[in-house]
Amino acid sequence: MATLVILRHGESVANRDNIFTGWSDVPLTAKGRAQAWSAGNLVAETGIQFAALHTSMLQRAIVTSHIILEAIDQLYLPEYKSWRLNERHYGALRGKNKAAVQEVVGVAQVKIWRRSFETVPPLLDHVTQDRRYDQFGPHVEPLGESLEMAYHRLMPYWEDEIAPRLLAGDNQLVVAHGSTLRALIKYLDHVADADISQVEVANGEPIRYDFDDRLNVLRKTVL
Amino acid sequence: MATLVILRHGESVANRDNIFTGWSDVPLTAKGRAQAWSAGNLVAETGIQFAALHTSMLQRAIVTSHIILEAIDQLYLPEYKSWRLNERHYGALRGKNKAAVQEVVGVAQVKIWRRSFETVPPLLDHVTQDRRYDQFGPHVEPLGESLEMAYHRLMPYWEDEIAPRLLAGDNQLVVAHGSTLRALIKYLDHVADADISQVEVANGEPIRYDFDDRLNVLRKTVL
Repeated sequence: MATLVILRHGESVANRDNIFTGWSDVPLTAKGRAQAWSAGNLVAETGIQFAALHTSMLQRAIVTSHIILEAIDQLYLPEYKSWRLNERHYGALRGKNKAAVQEVVGVAQVKIWRRSFETVPPLLDHVTQDRRYDQFGPHVEPLGESLEMAYHRLMPYWEDEIAPRLLAGDNQLVVAHGSTLRALIKYLDHVADADISQVEVANGEPIRYDFDDRLNVLRKTVL
Repeated sequence: MATLVILRHGESVANRDNIFTGWSDVPLTAKGRAQAWSAGNLVAETGIQFAALHTSMLQRAIVTSHIILEAIDQLYLPEYKSWRLNERHYGALRGKNKAAVQEVVGVAQVKIWRRSFETVPPLLDHVTQDRRYDQFGPHVEPLGESLEMAYHRLMPYWEDEIAPRLLAGDNQLVVAHGSTLRALIKYLDHVADADISQVEVANGEPIRYDFDDRLNVLRKTVL
């Protein structure tokens, strides 16, 4: 009945430099912008008319969104930006080079931090107090999150803002991040906790879900 | 107490080609994008932290907005897009070259159509039925508007969405169009109907209004 397209932002400078990022607000690279244009052209080819766009409060997702809206000639869509769609918060790993961390703690530990469902990264000792989150109160900025914690702060957004619109028959576009999209895919595809480490989401690769009128997945397509 | 910055979009292909435009959804030129970047840098220099961005449902204003948000590093701001901020609807003049129309009806008539407050342009005989306005009902798309008509559909947006936020002390950014900004300036600067023909708003030139806590203008500055 309705269609959802989800997309991870294009390559960021942190992707390029192999840095743990999370809520750090890093820009896209030129390659990342080009990936966003390519993704936008793939979405344009589907001819889907969307009713709204949902993205995070981080520029790599927002700029990707803007490029997609331009590529599909639907710039007039309402854009909703929510911290609930932000990347999983990487805690004290934020800003650190993944290979350098790997040398210290080993490949296995880094793999667990990056891909397991429950494991919490080393936490920050204080929140960053970024002005963009002030309006939501001091509890919003995490000290670090497991994928499971990100899943639980994401789901209210799905339940309150995305699912009702799909149930009303309105196609929705979500531009977000590797981990928050893994969490959403876990929910939509009924992936077990132990199997989520196998799920990867590539930069700039749109995934289309077609639903029936009870929001069961009829078809999943990588565009 | 709070600050408003208003900005007309950068040069569009219709500006470049001297075409009556209104609600036609024409893109920016490369020069228009560069103007938006320059405007964004001027706004960035003020250091103003905004709470929200308001723009129209037309891509020349939306793309300008996106560039401004990137230039001021405030991409995370809520973006509100309203048809009430759309350009004045030019009716049957839409898509026509201004110089060609001038040759037929004369310089004086074109000047009246472009700059007077009350004069209604030749009307369309049917509405365009653009999908972006469907959600607001069939009465939203005009057949053509005088500046006065545009003023009256703009003001509810000012009263309901912009003024209350300024009164709450939150700085607001508005990226819109020549005629809707002339209408807003008419209101803010108490310009008489007969004098509004003297008011012009240039592409990409940010205008800053600082208000007291009763929303009286303390200072108006062209950035």
